[in-house]
Amino acid sequence: MTISGPEPNLPSDSPSSWPAKPTGRSIIAGRPGGASGGPPRGSREADLLSFHAVDPRTGRELEGVYQSATTAQVAEACEAAERAFRANSARPPEDRAALLERIADVIDASAPSLLALASSETGLSVERLTPELKRTTFNLREFAKVVRAGAWLRRVVNRHRDRTDHAAHPDLASLLKPLGPVGVFGASNFPLAYSTAGTDTSSALAAGCSVVVKGHPSHPGTGEVVAQSVAAAVQELGFDPGTFSFLHSGGGGPREAAVGLELVRHPAIRAIGFTGSCSGGMALAEAARTRMVEGASSEFAGGFGVEGPVADPIPVFAEMGSTNPVFILPGALRAMGDEVADAVYSSFTNSAGQMCTCPGLIFVAAGEDATRFVSLLAQRVRASEGQVMLSFRVREGYHRRILELIHTQGVRLLARGALAQESRGGGVGEAAGQPIAGVGVGSLPDRAALDSVAMLLHTTLDVFLTKGTTRDECFGPSTLIVECPSAEDMVRAARAVQGSLAASIYARVGGAIPPEDAALVHKLVALLERRVGRLVFDGVPTGVVPLEAMVHGGPFPATNMPQATAVGARAIERWCRPVCYQDWPAELSRDILGD
Amino acid sequence: MTISGPEPNLPSDSPSSWPAKPTGRSIIAGRPGGASGGPPRGSREADLLSFHAVDPRTGRELEGVYQSATTAQVAEACEAAERAFRANSARPPEDRAALLERIADVIDASAPSLLALASSETGLSVERLTPELKRTTFNLREFAKVVRAGAWLRRVVNRHRDRTDHAAHPDLASLLKPLGPVGVFGASNFPLAYSTAGTDTSSALAAGCSVVVKGHPSHPGTGEVVAQSVAAAVQELGFDPGTFSFLHSGGGGPREAAVGLELVRHPAIRAIGFTGSCSGGMALAEAARTRMVEGASSEFAGGFGVEGPVADPIPVFAEMGSTNPVFILPGALRAMGDEVADAVYSSFTNSAGQMCTCPGLIFVAAGEDATRFVSLLAQRVRASEGQVMLSFRVREGYHRRILELIHTQGVRLLARGALAQESRGGGVGEAAGQPIAGVGVGSLPDRAALDSVAMLLHTTLDVFLTKGTTRDECFGPSTLIVECPSAEDMVRAARAVQGSLAASIYARVGGAIPPEDAALVHKLVALLERRVGRLVFDGVPTGVVPLEAMVHGGPFPATNMPQATAVGARAIERWCRPVCYQDWPAELSRDILGD
Repeated sequence: MTISGPEPNLPSDSPSSWPAKPTGRSIIAGRPGGASGGPPRGSREADLLSFHAVDPRTGRELEGVYQSATTAQVAEACEAAERAFRANSARPPEDRAALLERIADVIDASAPSLLALASSETGLSVERLTPELKRTTFNLREFAKVVRAGAWLRRVVNRHRDRTDHAAHPDLASLLKPLGPVGVFGASNFPLAYSTAGTDTSSALAAGCSVVVKGHPSHPGTGEVVAQSVAAAVQELGFDPGTFSFLHSGGGGPREAAVGLELVRHPAIRAIGFTGSCSGGMALAEAARTRMVEGASSEFAGGFGVEGPVADPIPVFAEMGSTNPVFILPGALRAMGDEVADAVYSSFTNSAGQMCTCPGLIFVAAGEDATRFVSLLAQRVRASEGQVMLSFRVREGYHRRILELIHTQGVRLLARGALAQESRGGGVGEAAGQPIAGVGVGSLPDRAALDSVAMLLHTTLDVFLTKGTTRDECFGPSTLIVECPSAEDMVRAARAVQGSLAASIYARVGGAIPPEDAALVHKLVALLERRVGRLVFDGVPTGVVPLEAMVHGGPFPATNMPQATAVGARAIERWCRPVCYQDWPAELSRDILGD
Repeated sequence: MTISGPEPNLPSDSPSSWPAKPTGRSIIAGRPGGASGGPPRGSREADLLSFHAVDPRTGRELEGVYQSATTAQVAEACEAAERAFRANSARPPEDRAALLERIADVIDASAPSLLALASSETGLSVERLTPELKRTTFNLREFAKVVRAGAWLRRVVNRHRDRTDHAAHPDLASLLKPLGPVGVFGASNFPLAYSTAGTDTSSALAAGCSVVVKGHPSHPGTGEVVAQSVAAAVQELGFDPGTFSFLHSGGGGPREAAVGLELVRHPAIRAIGFTGSCSGGMALAEAARTRMVEGASSEFAGGFGVEGPVADPIPVFAEMGSTNPVFILPGALRAMGDEVADAVYSSFTNSAGQMCTCPGLIFVAAGEDATRFVSLLAQRVRASEGQVMLSFRVREGYHRRILELIHTQGVRLLARGALAQESRGGGVGEAAGQPIAGVGVGSLPDRAALDSVAMLLHTTLDVFLTKGTTRDECFGPSTLIVECPSAEDMVRAARAVQGSLAASIYARVGGAIPPEDAALVHKLVALLERRVGRLVFDGVPTGVVPLEAMVHGGPFPATNMPQATAVGARAIERWCRPVCYQDWPAELSRDILGD
């Protein structure tokens, strides 16, 4: 997607803090470190909490020390979020729309320094991050429009006087009401669009919720600078400062996990948004489902003002793992195999394959056309250079999954790319472009730079249907070709894929589906509609446009909440609940019916 | 609510099976007992599976033997439901609307015998059941209108050509798609409106799902006769017979629980609707969340056609326990205390208090008006006669909860009703109208008739805030008066109530809120909006009108899915998931864009 956003519209009274720099402290209700400022620099507590960002291009720590939030800071952020939620509930929707637009403006204004910082922390190029930033601010402005239009509230009124076909019933009016403070866990792979002011935060603010973000430890500076932008907009527009807080956590010590769990378990928090791994998402969902809050501990929605612990489960909306299968039908494979190979190659290697909608499975029917297609893909992969991955953890995960796959009987490594300086030491296996066998995890060198190479794997439908590991996501620049005995066998393949965010069907030739493939297309659509959130025709699954009709969700394990979408206007509804008012007094009409 | 539905519109070609009688066998894809007919009568297997309905008025078994479904029958129903789902997906919405209306007609036509049967199995009077039946068929017809109108699909189209403010994006269209076969667990307390063809079944059929109902063991005959009506309509309108199945289960043996668990775990089943106890709902939700399906076992959505078990969690929409608190403000208590006492009394004793929206907590501020109000309520309760409860289990649960409450320090039994024939033996305690102390569970006689009496309990806000048990539901004809030191203290009370389906605020006097209560009303609304699905003004919480604006849902423990409602047009969405189509071919335009 290409979005040419509007020019930044920076007011003259910009806070002097722009362009902002990270302070290393959490931003709690508008203040670095919160009310106390946090543990003083140089203190023993500060040392225990400190961590650094790592430059994936060098593997070295970047300048700047960050402090994981303390338990008291997490509580302060959550308590402020509840107070802000109540204070903000009296504000008209227009104020929220203005806030979203202002956040977009401030982020746009910080673009040059923000992009450089994000690139240094993620290894993603400024060219790759620039459209992500545009998309992030475009999304904020789109939500502002949705909030102004008001239809998202789904207001329904059934007046007694409007019905004649049955006897008395009361007046009823229902609409969506925001849940309260929301906790957001940003993703590592989209440091802007799915992180601090990404789709979860912006949709929750649009709903009227306040937000506490747990920053991702792999881009703490980026997260904090975006948080400063949000906090600045909150302050300028006179919103309660607790409307938004940002908590640092990292360093791999006990606080890295504890900050997130404390956020999920705080009685003020009413819902969680998460983008990341399956294990991370499921762990948070479990903590949220089983959480007990100390009833008397607080006056928050989940603090009931009563004695003893109270069961208070909250929803978690987790976007997790996705394979995004691509089905290339015989007609399209024959007529356009070369273009499709180029498109698919770009899609699965883009951003080192670190996109949640990368095509991880490619289904083709065996034959000459498939052979040519696979050989073209292999050429492209062999010619590819290594790319820097987001973090040690992500690269390790990628290599572990690749080794798991190539040690699965019936799976072959067809091609691999070359590291920019192969002499620095091998990635997976010894020689570029050669099939690899018997490479143990132990042979993975502890290299300084976090780059890795594209991998093209191949298997047959039989193996795919019998070896469960071939059906799981591999997060990184790889894809698995699954060769089916015949085109009709793609139906068995479609049935076997796991829940995914997206799937693609390449079927058209010259704008129309060849008659011999038409029946197969219908069968695939019928199956894939039940497996994915978005079905793409004659295009790659990557590229999630934040427009109203977008669905970024899907059955497990793509998400744990298949009824929801993380992108598009409907994403706002995740942070709401319908409430019905029956025979309301005139005094409340404006609140309930709007203007 | 009073609904005068249309006259039954019975066609001349009615199946000879109307008015139907129970056969004692499950209805599987239109056939009693399914393809095999089930275990033959008199066989040892049939004996092991057999159970009877009980007449709560006599405590004796009713005529007719029912057979719990076998494992093979559960699987047959689920497999047929999947085949039907696929077959039905090609049908236009108009067909589904006609099916819903036809089901309503057939049920209406069977009304006289159905009402008599339901009354004999539940102890609810024909007068009480008649409006429930009207509401059930009204609801089916309302959903037919919603399906015809089509707006429930929430279709959104973003065409590339419609946007001028940014660069290229693909064409996107999204709409709700049905999940597949749905399993429904009916409630005991509404044998029609929340059971076999109640709101879960009708909303799932409206969505385009097929349905497998697990009949409630306390009204097996009613369930089966309604199932016959649904199956007859399915057959008449030429729907695949697997569109609807009904499974008997009961007798307290291993099959009673197993039928339900097998339904939840069958790979064809994609979602569950449940109305009942908190323990039941949470157990099903746990089974659904952790379910593993045998991937190779089938060709269903959850049978992936692959080797080995596959994690395949499905959503459960459970409506569970609710206290439905009532707040009576000082002005209303003074001006209208007598009328409110009458209304509240009727509301909590109606149907022996066996309604999910019965007012279980009444908050008043201490003072003369409260004393008078409580004394009036006590008079009404003392003058009340015993009512038959739904089943041994429900009556036992009621008595256990009453004993738990009256053994809680600070809770007093203010008044109790009298059994119709008190001489038959005491219910809870010995003497009618006397406070009870030290009555153990052991003193509950194993009486034949299942009647019980109304109970009026009293406590103070301090006790309510410190003794957790006072905040839980008591299912039966009782309510707990919570006396607050002052009106302002009701705010603390509102914060302390658990998630509920509904709450009431009595505030108006002569059509307007007295100025001295206005601020308090706003505070209560702000708190209760976060605790309940429906907020009733100057009326009782009972009475759930199935119109579009209705919300029948709420935070835990009222439901496990606070974003959903079980009643109203939005209930249909529970059985759907949004799917986005990107750059779809012309050949699929009609499916995606509609006509």
